[in-house]
Amino acid sequence: MKDRINLNEKLGQFSRHWSPHTVGEFNGHDLMVVKVQGEFNWHSHADSDDLFLVLRGELFIRLRDREVRLKPGELFVVARGVEHQPYALQETHLLLIEPSGTPNTGNAATAAPRTLI
Amino acid sequence: MKDRINLNEKLGQFSRHWSPHTVGEFNGHDLMVVKVQGEFNWHSHADSDDLFLVLRGELFIRLRDREVRLKPGELFVVARGVEHQPYALQETHLLLIEPSGTPNTGNAATAAPRTLI
Repeated sequence: MKDRINLNEKLGQFSRHWSPHTVGEFNGHDLMVVKVQGEFNWHSHADSDDLFLVLRGELFIRLRDREVRLKPGELFVVARGVEHQPYALQETHLLLIEPSGTPNTGNAATAAPRTLI
Repeated sequence: MKDRINLNEKLGQFSRHWSPHTVGEFNGHDLMVVKVQGEFNWHSHADSDDLFLVLRGELFIRLRDREVRLKPGELFVVARGVEHQPYALQETHLLLIEPSGTPNTGNAATAAPRTLI
């Protein structure tokens, strides 16, 4: 983490959806960028809040009792233990922050591998 | 932290420089927006990394051995214990993330009070 991190430059280095890429570390957390489109699985993280900041596009997060809609410059924190399902109708770019090692699916068996760029 | 947080809406609620406003909480950290212009003091945080994400304008961070320049969409993590001096030539808007209670000046005696919006 020696230098500035340009989020768009990092997002330009991959195209796969729902594949978080770690661009930095911060207090035991991974700073990740991800491109999403379509639906992710319902999941929760027992031990960590989940931070989503929209950089481009539009993100929807279904919760069991409502739905949150996020545009660029908007963020949402899913509290630990809360089930959620993110989805996007168009390609959407996000900054995610989670404790290093948190499985993105809520399940280590199905989680994306940690990928540093 | 019940709903989405629009960073620009939050930034529209105050005008004072170098006065971080807490807009949310995440894993024991405060999510803060701040408007800066001019020079801040040299300081460090012994126990925490310091995350800066530029939302508008341009931020410079002097380190003892070099200087970092950040534009919108760029972030930088000052590692714990590293002395730094942020400054901005024009009004610049930032997202900051620090453990709740971290003094913004590195010194509880001179720190801005915690202000939630």
